[in-house]
Amino acid sequence: MEAFEVFKDLAIIIVFAKLFGLIARKLRAPQVVGEIIAGLLIGPSVLKIVNLSDFISQMAEIGVLLLMFSAGLETNLKDLIKTGPKALAIACAGVFVPLIGGTILYSAFYHIPPVWGDEKFFSAIFIGVIMTATSVSITVESLKEMGKLKGEIGQTILSAAIIDDVIGIIVLTFVIGLKNPDAGSENVVLMRLLDNIYPMNSFVKVIILTVLFFAVAAGLGFGIYKLFKLADFRFPHTRRIPILGLALCFVFAWAAETFFGIADITGAYVAGIILCSLKDSEYIAEKMDTNSYMLFGPIFFASIGLKTDISEINVEILLFCVGFVIVALATKIIGCGLMSRALRFKWKDSLKIGIGMMTRGEVALIVAQKGLAVKMVEPVYFTAVILLIIVSSISTPIILKLLYASDDKAKA
Amino acid sequence: MEAFEVFKDLAIIIVFAKLFGLIARKLRAPQVVGEIIAGLLIGPSVLKIVNLSDFISQMAEIGVLLLMFSAGLETNLKDLIKTGPKALAIACAGVFVPLIGGTILYSAFYHIPPVWGDEKFFSAIFIGVIMTATSVSITVESLKEMGKLKGEIGQTILSAAIIDDVIGIIVLTFVIGLKNPDAGSENVVLMRLLDNIYPMNSFVKVIILTVLFFAVAAGLGFGIYKLFKLADFRFPHTRRIPILGLALCFVFAWAAETFFGIADITGAYVAGIILCSLKDSEYIAEKMDTNSYMLFGPIFFASIGLKTDISEINVEILLFCVGFVIVALATKIIGCGLMSRALRFKWKDSLKIGIGMMTRGEVALIVAQKGLAVKMVEPVYFTAVILLIIVSSISTPIILKLLYASDDKAKA
Repeated sequence: MEAFEVFKDLAIIIVFAKLFGLIARKLRAPQVVGEIIAGLLIGPSVLKIVNLSDFISQMAEIGVLLLMFSAGLETNLKDLIKTGPKALAIACAGVFVPLIGGTILYSAFYHIPPVWGDEKFFSAIFIGVIMTATSVSITVESLKEMGKLKGEIGQTILSAAIIDDVIGIIVLTFVIGLKNPDAGSENVVLMRLLDNIYPMNSFVKVIILTVLFFAVAAGLGFGIYKLFKLADFRFPHTRRIPILGLALCFVFAWAAETFFGIADITGAYVAGIILCSLKDSEYIAEKMDTNSYMLFGPIFFASIGLKTDISEINVEILLFCVGFVIVALATKIIGCGLMSRALRFKWKDSLKIGIGMMTRGEVALIVAQKGLAVKMVEPVYFTAVILLIIVSSISTPIILKLLYASDDKAKA
Repeated sequence: MEAFEVFKDLAIIIVFAKLFGLIARKLRAPQVVGEIIAGLLIGPSVLKIVNLSDFISQMAEIGVLLLMFSAGLETNLKDLIKTGPKALAIACAGVFVPLIGGTILYSAFYHIPPVWGDEKFFSAIFIGVIMTATSVSITVESLKEMGKLKGEIGQTILSAAIIDDVIGIIVLTFVIGLKNPDAGSENVVLMRLLDNIYPMNSFVKVIILTVLFFAVAAGLGFGIYKLFKLADFRFPHTRRIPILGLALCFVFAWAAETFFGIADITGAYVAGIILCSLKDSEYIAEKMDTNSYMLFGPIFFASIGLKTDISEINVEILLFCVGFVIVALATKIIGCGLMSRALRFKWKDSLKIGIGMMTRGEVALIVAQKGLAVKMVEPVYFTAVILLIIVSSISTPIILKLLYASDDKAKA
C-alpha cells in the first residue's frame, strides 16, 4: 500500500465520526456512540470503504493512551482526600457489586461453572470488569445544569466516580494478569527476574508485580511530579510541558507492559494521575484534547465500529446484551445506593447517588477493547457495551431531574 | 512487534527532539535543525536506540502534510494581490536562478551531460528544485525586531517569499511528473483515462494533468471555500472547522496522487491555500500546530535524521555540501537582488531583499524528502540541506542588521 492511501481512510474516518458524533449529540446521546456507529457504517459491516489496517490500529492504540492519560490528568487528588472515606466506601461497592453481578450474569447465561483458572470463567469475570468503571461526565453535566453539583451529593458522586476509576483499573490489572499468568511472561523483564530469584506460583508473581508496579509508580511518580513542578514554575504554558507529559504517558505505558506485564492503559492512566496536581495540568489536558479530538479519538472510537461485525449478532447475543445492560445498571444502583444508605444518607439521596454512578462511557469501551486484545472478550460483545453507554447516558439525566424535581415539590 | 513497543520510540523521539530543538534555539539556530540532529543521534548513525519503522515513517508523512497545509493556511491572498507584480517578478527570479544554479552545480560536480530524460540529469535538476523554496520566518522575525517589517522592503520580501513557495511547488510538481512520466502511470486514474482517449507523449500527459490539477483545484476550491465560509459564519471556533479542514488536507493529498499523479504535499498545500482566507483560518492553523508540535512535527524532522546515514559522508560529499550552500545563497541574492534593482529599488535595498530571501527552512527539507521518496535524491544530500538551513538562518539576521544599521548611520 502506498503511503498516501492511508490519507483517504483517515479523511473518511474523521469526517464520518464528526458527522455522526454531531447527530448523536442532537439526539442527546453521547458523541462517542455516534463515532462508533460511523465506524460500523464505513467498515466491513456496511459500506466496506475502510478497512482496519495496522496503521489505523496503532493510531487507535495511541488514541486510547491519550484518553486514559487525560482521565488521569483530570483527577483532583485534593478534593478526593477531602471527600475521603465515604466516597471510597461507595466507590468500592460500586466496583465490586457490578464485578460480581457481571460474572454471575455471564456464567449463568452460558452455564459456566465457577472454576478458577478456567478460560471461560475468566471471560465471565472480565464481563464484570467491563461493568465497573463509571463515567461521570454526563451526571456532572446534569447536576451542573440543576445547580446541584456543589452539594454534598454532587461532590460525593464526583469523588466516588474518580476513586471508582482507580479501583477499576487495579481490578482490571489483576484480572488480566491472573487470567493467564504464564502467557508472554518470558517477555516481561521482572517476571524473568523473579523466576531466577525464586521459582514461585504464577499467581503470586502477578500479585507481586502488580503491587510492585503501583509502589514503583508512586515512588517514581513523586520524584517526577517534583521535577515537573519545577518546570511548571519556571516555564508555565510552554510547549515543553505538554510534550514531556505526553512522553511520560508513552514511557509509563511501555514500561508497564515491558517490565511488569501490566496493561499499557494502566501506565498511561497512572502517568496522568502523577501530573494531575500540577498548575499546568489543565494546560496539558487541553493540548492532549486537541490531539485527541482532531485525529486519535475519532480513530479509536471508529475502530471499535470497524471491529464490530454485526453479522454475528443473533437473538442469543441480543438477549445477553439486554441482560448486560440491566445488570450493569442495577448493580451500580444497588451497590452504591445501599452503601450510601449505610453511610446515613437518606433513602432518596442514596438513590440519587446510585443513579448518578450508573453512567458508563469511554472507559468501559477501553476496558472492553483491552479484553479483546488479550482475547478475553469477543468483538460482538462491544454491542452490549455500546448499548449500556446509550441507555445509561440517556436515562441518567432524566431520572436525576425527576428525583430533584420531586424534592423541590416536597419543599414547596 | 507488539503495539506498545512503538510507545518507547515515540517517547524517545519527542523528548530528544524537544531537548535538541531547545539547544538549537539557545544557539540561535532554527529548532528544526536541533530536531534533525536528535534524529541523527538516536538513529542508526550513533546511539542506535530507535529504528525507522513503517509506523514512524507513516506518522512522518502525516507530519509533512500538516506542515504544508499550515504553510498554505498562513498565506495571505489579499496582501499578495496588493503587492502584486513586483513581488511576483522577484519571486520568479528567486525560483529560476537557484533552479538553474543548482542544476549546473550538480552537473558540473559530477560531470553529468545535460541530456533531457537522463536519470542523473533529473537528479541535478532536483538539486536545483530543493534550492527554490524560501522560508521567510527568520527574516520576518529579524525585520520585526528592527521595526522594518511594515516598510516597502519588508512587505516585498514577505509577498515574494509566499509567491516563491507557490511557484516552487509548481516547479516541483512538474519536475517529479516529468522525471519518469510512465512510472506508476498505470496507477494514476486520469493518466489511464488520457491513454484511452488519445495516445500521446508522456511529457504532454504530465503537463496536461498538472495544469488540469491546478484548474480543478481552483474550481473545486472556490466551492469548498464558500461551504467552509458558511460553516465559519454559523459555527465559528467549533471543533468541526479544523476537523473538516484536516479532512480536506488528507483528501487533496490523496486525490492529487491518485487521480493526477501529483505529489501529496502539493495537494495539502493547495488545501491550505483554499482555506487561507477564512475568518477561522488562524484557528485552524493553531489546532494544526498543536497536533504538529506535539507529535507529528518532531517525528518528521527526527525521521530525516534517522534516514541520514552520516557514515556515507566523505570528503567529496562535504565539498559538494559547501558548494551547495554557496550556490544556494548566492543565486537567491543575485536573482532576487538584480530583479529588485531592475524594478528600480536602490542597490542597497535590492541587496536587503536578496539577503532577506536567502533563508531556507522546513520546505527545503520537505522537498528533499519528496525527492528521496521518488528516488531522485540520496539521503546523504540531506546533509547539504541541513547545512544550508543552518548557515542561512544564522547569517541572514546578522547581515540584515548590519545593512539597516549602516542606513541609520548614514541618515544620522
